[in-house]
Amino acid sequence: MQIHLPLSGTGTVPQRLYRDLRLALAEGRLAPGERLPPSRALAAELGIARQAVVDTYERLVAEGFFEARRGAGTFVRRLPPVVTGEQVEPGVGPGRHWRPLPVWGDREAPRRYNFAGGVTDRRLLPMTDWRRAVMRALREEARDRTLQGECQGYLGLREGISHYLGYSRGLPCAADEVMVTQGAMQGMDLLSRVRIVPGAVVAVEEPGYPPARWVFESYGARVVGVPVDEQGLCVDQVPEAASMIYVTPSHQFPLGMPMTLERRLQLLDFVRGRDVLIVEDDYDGEFRFDGRSLEALKSLDRHQQVVYLGSFSKVLHADLRLGYMIMPKGLQAALRQAKSLTDGRAPNLMQKALANLIEEGAFARHLRRMQRLYQRRRQRLLEALAQRPDLWNCLPQVAGIHLTLEFRQSVDKLEARLLGAGINAEDLGGFHASSEGTKGLLIGFGMIDDEDIEVGVRALARALSA
Amino acid sequence: MQIHLPLSGTGTVPQRLYRDLRLALAEGRLAPGERLPPSRALAAELGIARQAVVDTYERLVAEGFFEARRGAGTFVRRLPPVVTGEQVEPGVGPGRHWRPLPVWGDREAPRRYNFAGGVTDRRLLPMTDWRRAVMRALREEARDRTLQGECQGYLGLREGISHYLGYSRGLPCAADEVMVTQGAMQGMDLLSRVRIVPGAVVAVEEPGYPPARWVFESYGARVVGVPVDEQGLCVDQVPEAASMIYVTPSHQFPLGMPMTLERRLQLLDFVRGRDVLIVEDDYDGEFRFDGRSLEALKSLDRHQQVVYLGSFSKVLHADLRLGYMIMPKGLQAALRQAKSLTDGRAPNLMQKALANLIEEGAFARHLRRMQRLYQRRRQRLLEALAQRPDLWNCLPQVAGIHLTLEFRQSVDKLEARLLGAGINAEDLGGFHASSEGTKGLLIGFGMIDDEDIEVGVRALARALSA
Repeated sequence: MQIHLPLSGTGTVPQRLYRDLRLALAEGRLAPGERLPPSRALAAELGIARQAVVDTYERLVAEGFFEARRGAGTFVRRLPPVVTGEQVEPGVGPGRHWRPLPVWGDREAPRRYNFAGGVTDRRLLPMTDWRRAVMRALREEARDRTLQGECQGYLGLREGISHYLGYSRGLPCAADEVMVTQGAMQGMDLLSRVRIVPGAVVAVEEPGYPPARWVFESYGARVVGVPVDEQGLCVDQVPEAASMIYVTPSHQFPLGMPMTLERRLQLLDFVRGRDVLIVEDDYDGEFRFDGRSLEALKSLDRHQQVVYLGSFSKVLHADLRLGYMIMPKGLQAALRQAKSLTDGRAPNLMQKALANLIEEGAFARHLRRMQRLYQRRRQRLLEALAQRPDLWNCLPQVAGIHLTLEFRQSVDKLEARLLGAGINAEDLGGFHASSEGTKGLLIGFGMIDDEDIEVGVRALARALSA
Repeated sequence: MQIHLPLSGTGTVPQRLYRDLRLALAEGRLAPGERLPPSRALAAELGIARQAVVDTYERLVAEGFFEARRGAGTFVRRLPPVVTGEQVEPGVGPGRHWRPLPVWGDREAPRRYNFAGGVTDRRLLPMTDWRRAVMRALREEARDRTLQGECQGYLGLREGISHYLGYSRGLPCAADEVMVTQGAMQGMDLLSRVRIVPGAVVAVEEPGYPPARWVFESYGARVVGVPVDEQGLCVDQVPEAASMIYVTPSHQFPLGMPMTLERRLQLLDFVRGRDVLIVEDDYDGEFRFDGRSLEALKSLDRHQQVVYLGSFSKVLHADLRLGYMIMPKGLQAALRQAKSLTDGRAPNLMQKALANLIEEGAFARHLRRMQRLYQRRRQRLLEALAQRPDLWNCLPQVAGIHLTLEFRQSVDKLEARLLGAGINAEDLGGFHASSEGTKGLLIGFGMIDDEDIEVGVRALARALSA
């Protein structure tokens, strides 16, 4: 057999040899039945260790492409299937009920200045602690004799979450009220699934968080936007027919004011005695900078009408895909059932690793460290933004890892300007259901490097003025 | 301050000290404003290292319960919230559309003899390779500068899956046809979500996999059971109105026969030119013991009417919660959208670790090793079962990690008998929608220890005869 094996590209020698041999198979340069050179001979010819050839042959045997015949050598057994790039008809499509909506939170390329909202920097994760927590979880997994995990979530993590909410949000809850979800997003989805009858009226804040609106609509809800003022949701404008009300009380998304105690009590009073569920999305209420933290709305709920949604996306990273719900009693059975039908449960390893991080105290230390870091970064950003009062007005955000700018005058081609200046930031208009929203930007500071803040803000000012 | 800190229980000294101090806070033995003993004094009193006290105080400071005042010492800042065990009203319940159904795949306690179906043994995982793959993924994560992961799944894993299906199932596909899901379960859920209009007719095999039936029903489908015979699904009995057909062609669940080529072609012919989707659930077709592997039904699909569902639950472990779909073109956009609304995406770390395991060849080696191990274990189980032809008839399963027994005569109180004998195994009756199903058992061999096979089968024989 004569075959060209350049061993080029990245990876270890066995990986490169493997790629070359696969390519030779795919291109038909190796045919079924053909005998491969002995490992010793090939290693000598290529000037590599014999073990690298042995390992690679074994891998291709394991994959069924090669065959080792005792005493006779290694032979090509079969060729990999060919993926053709031919144009095909689209075939079966979605049902007539399915409405195309935007995809939110998909992979986004970083630009020069990352003022993206709702994302945090992987470099800020407590990597040593996290690695140790993952290692410990791997060892625990290896010893675990139970047949499979718990649908509602790993008990150790549910205990950790209940503990965490006690110290971070003043929210007392028991582990059996907690359900572990894939981010807060899945919480909204499961709630919609068990609560929303097609045609049901769901009230959301206007402006607000678009994916919440979309998930409710995808279950057939009639979504009604309710205005917010400086006290939060205008409760007196919530439709009488609403069966679900989605709110962000700790700091309104995207505008930033907390819902006042008066409004919270008014909202609870509004739902009292009716079949209405309040969905409290506390998306990053842990990071609070001005004044004393208002407790979670859920802590005022005496009649099991509030569900609390939280997420580790902002305190750790969204890639973990771990969030949680504090479930009202009456919904627990249905939510467990919905979770079992949706995806079974969250991956054990991730749940155990996070439980370990919490249990070992590393999580609380990280949270505290991030609070200090974000406090400093936010101050620096506020000062940089204050240089250009001619261009924007910065809305007071009491918490969280973004700020909101209202432009002094409307800006055309905003997305193109941001792209041209290498800036990730979100058009505030996108959070309004109507197109007549405030003209402005959501400026996140979870990702931006400290030293990029001033230069990034100057780049933004130039982009808006150009 | 005098306080009882017994340092009992498990864990490191700081963990035990932390628990004792938390308990003292929770029970009100430490009051806000109270001054803690200096770390040196407390360490001396308890006979532990001073650093343990320092670390514990710091953790409680980070959690907001203690406060360190420079030069003055450490003080109690606030108490943890109290979780009361009071009986509460149930509050808000699910919508009127929501039907209570069983919860499938929740945590199950292992018994003496684990013949549970569909589960594998964590001890058989390639732990060294898996640990290395996870470690590498952690390093890659730390370097990753993208803002967030991809909704459709990490590209490296999608490439790995396309590669894997090429060698394990003879199914050519490109990475952009692959969607990474949380187990095959989420694939069924997403498909139902985008395809099923309430009242739509969905055909399933009878007997079949109950959670598939439930998920279709939860979206309002009218589910019709279609009988299977020795060739697989009786295609001529599929209702004309069916808009979705769920099948297990590689080996029928739970009875075990593969769908013949004739039936496969008949099924494809039946759907041709109509708006009907075939859902091919290839739940453990990798493990094939008798005869040549039939290719996936999807590989015969020329008109984008088949979606292929696979899972790593059987080749690795269900706790990974990683599966995949090969999507027909016409459904790709809707499925991506549904995934983004459901849970955003799968956890990056798990996806990257699995991609590494595949890329490094360790996955193929594991698969090969498990094929040999299951082959041996299955043979041993078949021989043990053959000792009692008076009690059961063992149905031929051509693939997978379970066998099916038909009892010679009906057995009353089956679940109680199994429990009494310490046996996990599933009543075959549970897979029939009607109660008149075959009386028998599904016997899995993914979890049972080799040396427990004969003694487990004897225990089963005794339990059935008693």
